[in-house]
Amino acid sequence: MVPMPARRHKTVQAVAGTIRRHGLVPAGAHVLAAASGGPDSVALASILRELSGVRRGGFRLTLAHLDHRLRAAAARDRRFVAELARRWDLPVVSGRRDVRALARRRGVGIEEAARMARYDFLNRAARKAGAGIVAVGHHADDQAETVLMNLLRGSGLRGLAGMPIRRPLAPGSEVTLVRPLLEVRRAEVVDYLEARGLEWMEDETNRSRRMLRNRVRLDLLPMLERDYAPGFAARLARSAEGLRAVQQLVAGRAAAAWDGAVAVATARSIEFRLDALAGEGCAVASEMFLAAMEQLGAGRGNLTAAHLGRLWQVIIAGRGGQRVELPGRVRAVRSGRRLRLTRST
Amino acid sequence: MVPMPARRHKTVQAVAGTIRRHGLVPAGAHVLAAASGGPDSVALASILRELSGVRRGGFRLTLAHLDHRLRAAAARDRRFVAELARRWDLPVVSGRRDVRALARRRGVGIEEAARMARYDFLNRAARKAGAGIVAVGHHADDQAETVLMNLLRGSGLRGLAGMPIRRPLAPGSEVTLVRPLLEVRRAEVVDYLEARGLEWMEDETNRSRRMLRNRVRLDLLPMLERDYAPGFAARLARSAEGLRAVQQLVAGRAAAAWDGAVAVATARSIEFRLDALAGEGCAVASEMFLAAMEQLGAGRGNLTAAHLGRLWQVIIAGRGGQRVELPGRVRAVRSGRRLRLTRST
Repeated sequence: MVPMPARRHKTVQAVAGTIRRHGLVPAGAHVLAAASGGPDSVALASILRELSGVRRGGFRLTLAHLDHRLRAAAARDRRFVAELARRWDLPVVSGRRDVRALARRRGVGIEEAARMARYDFLNRAARKAGAGIVAVGHHADDQAETVLMNLLRGSGLRGLAGMPIRRPLAPGSEVTLVRPLLEVRRAEVVDYLEARGLEWMEDETNRSRRMLRNRVRLDLLPMLERDYAPGFAARLARSAEGLRAVQQLVAGRAAAAWDGAVAVATARSIEFRLDALAGEGCAVASEMFLAAMEQLGAGRGNLTAAHLGRLWQVIIAGRGGQRVELPGRVRAVRSGRRLRLTRST
Repeated sequence: MVPMPARRHKTVQAVAGTIRRHGLVPAGAHVLAAASGGPDSVALASILRELSGVRRGGFRLTLAHLDHRLRAAAARDRRFVAELARRWDLPVVSGRRDVRALARRRGVGIEEAARMARYDFLNRAARKAGAGIVAVGHHADDQAETVLMNLLRGSGLRGLAGMPIRRPLAPGSEVTLVRPLLEVRRAEVVDYLEARGLEWMEDETNRSRRMLRNRVRLDLLPMLERDYAPGFAARLARSAEGLRAVQQLVAGRAAAAWDGAVAVATARSIEFRLDALAGEGCAVASEMFLAAMEQLGAGRGNLTAAHLGRLWQVIIAGRGGQRVELPGRVRAVRSGRRLRLTRST
């Protein structure tokens, strides 16, 4: 890394530190930055642009914008991102997905479908552009929101561990997803945008208190910080970081035991050997169920600790014929010494 | 187990199920039940008394009461428990500890000192009475409170996993601590007390909103149940159960790696080999630090994810001479390829 120029904003310094400590962007990499047009994504793109030009550790940058066909302002946002790219002289890849139709087809909620569509688009766009890294704009306050939401709906380890700072974009993908803003607070992002005189597009749905995530962000987190635990959001993000280390340990054991525990795997169905699951214990077995949900295309995010608890009961105390209904139209059925997860179409 | 008599209250049935599923009380055991005189402890003692007489799976029951010397009503509570024991024809063991003095001596807070005094008393009382099992009255709502409090102060895995349903009363102790009420809600406990016409002593400090735990119980949890996530307390207790399975996995690895990672251990100081800690990874190393805090008598409960994060930074990126101040007058100092935790007296 070259010495930092004096005029580098402190948020840019913080992000540069995150990128260096976690090795998020190898020198010479091609980074695709997800750009919705919202404040976090504008800051992400601009900060990465400032960092891309350093003499050592420089990288290529491309913007990627997906129209989810969910909001009236979608065309406005697309034009805004295109204009940013023109002004900054950056290439931009655009795409469009019908998220509502996807939600119906997959039997999941709108938010989960939007997430699926976004990551599918980013995966294709990265491979098309030849980019090995996809960057998204989640910051420490998003992390705290995510962990708290997961807690409210009863998640286990994986949910409470929050979003990783880097991971494969999809299972087995060679494209890496990174979150360079994950260690800075929302206030630092806003401070940067103001210091640079940058504009952004507001997503009006972010203010609706009909969505749990918005109430958590607008009401619950500020109340907890004020009345119960000053600095709570930052602490929550740190607790999540500790849990991710544990999660890696569990995921490593699950990956090592996978082949021995899976008797049959097809696109629609995965059949586990009960004795292998029981031998690995509840934590590792739960991780395998989450991996199975992902492989079946049902999304691991909707499986709660209650689901995992019921599956574990069927393993250790159940009988043949017992079944557990899971999200995303997946059903688990015990048959002899096997447990089969099947997704109906 | 004999068939249940028709008049058995449903809370008693639920507790009998918990005891059976988790194998908390072997037939013929001698159980020492902690009895503060509060509603949970009265319900615990009474339910255990109802269950102690069954033909198979019966057990002996003794009450244990500790005067913490913290409240004006201490003498009243002691007399109340003695009177209960007389009426129920049960033996009772009483003790007295100066918790305020202990807190000063150990450099910990009152709540932590009260916990230490209680468990020390129960350990001695159990050994004196020849009881292999100590039962305490925590229920599912206590569990949710504990997990939420730990979350607010930034705990890692162990804090978020909450209270185990059974564990050795002290490290290496042959006495087992069990929580037979951990799967029933506070409302079920109250319902039982009313059905049996039982009285209890109110602890007036439970209503003071100066203590965080009381505000969590009286304000935060009811608000979260009402406005954000109906059934939240039960879900939180279940999430904690899943995390305990993970915690066992981590603790198992830590125990297996302990001898190889500890170079020197005395009553005041534990010296770790850095390379061994680094090789085990952050999650297992953190578990070892928690075990070390306990061995040093500093209490593991006060170590936050932030402390563990700083210790891990010193391991992987630190230099000789670097130190981290920990709760309970413990200091960690890096020296060469060693990290020494020392507790000052």
